[in-house]
Order: sequence, then C-alpha cells, then structure tokens
Amino acid sequence: MKIAVFGTGSVGQTIASKLSSLGYEVMIGTRDVNESKSRTAADPYGNPGFGTWLISNSMIKLGSFAEAASFGDLLVNATSGSSSVKAFKSAKPDDLKEKIIVDIANPLDFSKGMPPSLIPSLSNTFSLGEELQKEFPQTKVVKTLNTMWCGLMVNPGMIGGGDHVNYLCGNDTEAKFKVKEILKKFGWKNESLLDLGDITNSRGTEAVLPIWLRVWGTTGTGAFNFRIVR
Amino acid sequence: MKIAVFGTGSVGQTIASKLSSLGYEVMIGTRDVNESKSRTAADPYGNPGFGTWLISNSMIKLGSFAEAASFGDLLVNATSGSSSVKAFKSAKPDDLKEKIIVDIANPLDFSKGMPPSLIPSLSNTFSLGEELQKEFPQTKVVKTLNTMWCGLMVNPGMIGGGDHVNYLCGNDTEAKFKVKEILKKFGWKNESLLDLGDITNSRGTEAVLPIWLRVWGTTGTGAFNFRIVR
Repeated sequence: MKIAVFGTGSVGQTIASKLSSLGYEVMIGTRDVNESKSRTAADPYGNPGFGTWLISNSMIKLGSFAEAASFGDLLVNATSGSSSVKAFKSAKPDDLKEKIIVDIANPLDFSKGMPPSLIPSLSNTFSLGEELQKEFPQTKVVKTLNTMWCGLMVNPGMIGGGDHVNYLCGNDTEAKFKVKEILKKFGWKNESLLDLGDITNSRGTEAVLPIWLRVWGTTGTGAFNFRIVR
Repeated sequence: MKIAVFGTGSVGQTIASKLSSLGYEVMIGTRDVNESKSRTAADPYGNPGFGTWLISNSMIKLGSFAEAASFGDLLVNATSGSSSVKAFKSAKPDDLKEKIIVDIANPLDFSKGMPPSLIPSLSNTFSLGEELQKEFPQTKVVKTLNTMWCGLMVNPGMIGGGDHVNYLCGNDTEAKFKVKEILKKFGWKNESLLDLGDITNSRGTEAVLPIWLRVWGTTGTGAFNFRIVR
C-alpha cells in the first residue's frame, strides 16, 4: 500500500519514517517542494531541518500536496489544522475519491497566547475532523492519534506497557477497521483503541489538547498519555 | 469548619453528604428553599427528589444562596455552570470576602444537542473558573473535581486503587493547599493531585468534558477517570 503523509513537521516525519520502516511506500506532501528541501538548519532542540532529514530518509519521496494525493492509496493529515483544508484542496478531487484520510492534526490557534487555544470555528460545536469530512465528502475521514506526542503515536509501548488510550472516530466502519490494522502495526493493542463513533466525536478528541498542553507544561514531558481507569 | 455547597443536584448532594460525614457543618444553598424542599418525586434513575433526600440527611441544612454564603467559611460551587455567577451574585459581597470558592462545576450547553457542548463565552479562551474569579475578585477560586462523575469525587478508591488524576488550579497557593487537605480526606492521594497553576488552567480542565462525555457515552459507565501514564 502506498501512503501519502501531508505535512513536513515533526509529526509528519515521525509517521512517514514509521510507515516506511513497516514496508509501506511513502510520499510526504508539501506546499512547496523546493522550499521544504531547502530547510536544512536544525531547530532549537537540535532536530535536523526537513531537507537534512529527507536526505537521511531516502526511501521517503517528497511531492506537492497534489502529487501526494495522487500517489497515496491512503492519506495522512499531519499539517497544521489551520491549513489542512487548503492542503487537501490542492489535490485533484478525483485523487481523493474513496480514499481514507487519517486525520491526526489539531486545529490549534497560536494567535491568542500560550498554550495555544483551539481555532474558534473548528471547536466545541465543530471540529477539524468534521471540516475535512464536510469539505471532501468523497473521502472517508478517520480521526485518530491526535491526542498525544508523535513519539508515542508510533511507539505506544514506550510508556506504561502501551496501556493507554487512542481514540478513533469516523463515519465509515470499514475505513476505521483499516486504520486500526495500521495502528496495530504501530504497536497499539486492540483494547487501547476506543472507537467513539462518527466523525462528530472529533469535537471530543480535539478538546483533549487544552488539557494535554497544560499537563505537558506542568510535568515538562510530552511522553505521557491518558489511560482510562474503570 | 462550616462549608456551604451551592446547588441541590446530585453533585451537590454527594459533596454535601461526604463533607457532613467527615464532621463538617454543611449548608446547601439554593435559589428557592421552598421549591427545593417540594421536590420529592424520584428521578428516572430512582434517585429520590431533593426534598426527600434532605429529610434523610437531617444533619445538612438548607438555605438560600445568600444564607449559604453567610454560613460557609468555604463555599463549593456545584450549580450548573450557566447559573453559577447568578447564584454567587445572590450573596452579600461581604459574605464572600476572602473566602475560597471550590468550583467543581462545568459550563455545559445543552441547547445544541447531545452530548452537551461548552457555553461558547465560557470556553476555549475563557472558562467558568475564570469567570467566577473575575466576577468575585474578593474570593479565591480553586477549580478541581470537575473532570469526573461525582461518585468518584468523594470516593476515588472506588476504581484503580485511587490512582487517577484530579487537577487543581487557582491563583492562591494557600487556598489550593487548604482544598488539597479536604481532597485528601475524600481519599485523594497527594500524587494524584496535579496542580496546573493559575485559574486560567480551568480552560484545560473544563475542556475535559467533551471527551469525558463521549467516553461515558461509548463505555456506558460514568465510574471512570483518566490516569496520566508516563
């Protein structure tokens, strides 16, 4: 299976690497291929710039959003929530037809101070997951993985024996089943995957961010997740 | 210590009972004393009406919001978030002076379908906890316990050995210390109490509701909470 990962940030890189290591053919989609390749300076945390990272991950292709949409049998949204719709609008509508969009992004609003809040029009009574499903009705949006640090997304066993929750939601049962199969390859146990129902439940999973960001700020580590205790 | 619990619903009843059983003098505050007493019909789940409940909890006093504010050395807000400010406005300002308000309520909006969303003006970039602190600057608002079912608030050991999280936030360190002492009497372990900082962090803890409500809807039990796994 060919998978396209939209977004060149740390989340996109982490997901693309993992998918590639699992044997999937992977293309990362970006707004501007040359600009992305030219980002070689390391960030303040010492992570290499995207261009440098790409050279050391030569199995992974890079293309425009339109090329990535055409390439992928399944599409992962790892763009910032504020530009996700625009990214997928770059695709030819036919290249989205019947495809699964695994939406792992969050509609964060950095304009009102830190920690970020949620984009008002994409929160509370709406959500990014729903927005994508509404704008691209020919796709099957499955929201998942957005409630944690990307290192845990692809390596849940890193903490607590992997016993912590990853929510899924989406309107298409078969699409959710297919996404679950990939999540299991990431190391997720079936009993950690909680299907909340249709895509409106993105309102709930995206609302995890306001508390997630504050626990992160208080504890100083992003390598945590929530376990449901009953 | 005398404690006033604002609100006659199941949360107010549960908190009042527990505080009374711990030896505190407790008065429940309500909008209309006679109306509250006249509620004797059981709810669809078989819980007695407030008037019936009060008769079988004769140690607990009932008064108007103003009387409760005057009575309590410490005040607990267990009203619906949409009417919390109005409830505390019934108090004489001097009766609120320097008092701790333990805000365990949520600004739920039932007007947009189920599960409820958050009241737009009290969410994302604002919160009920902040609203109370802003409207009643002579008080010390401590937000806590609002992220779970009331049965767990007063009996955390009911599940998972009590190892699950209860957040606190508020601007006054000493007030948070005093509230923690009461929470420990409820059975909360010190290591389960996560102080997120000032009252703006209510934005995070109140945002737990959208996911809490959906986990509840999916799993069918409110007797759950979240543990932070690291």
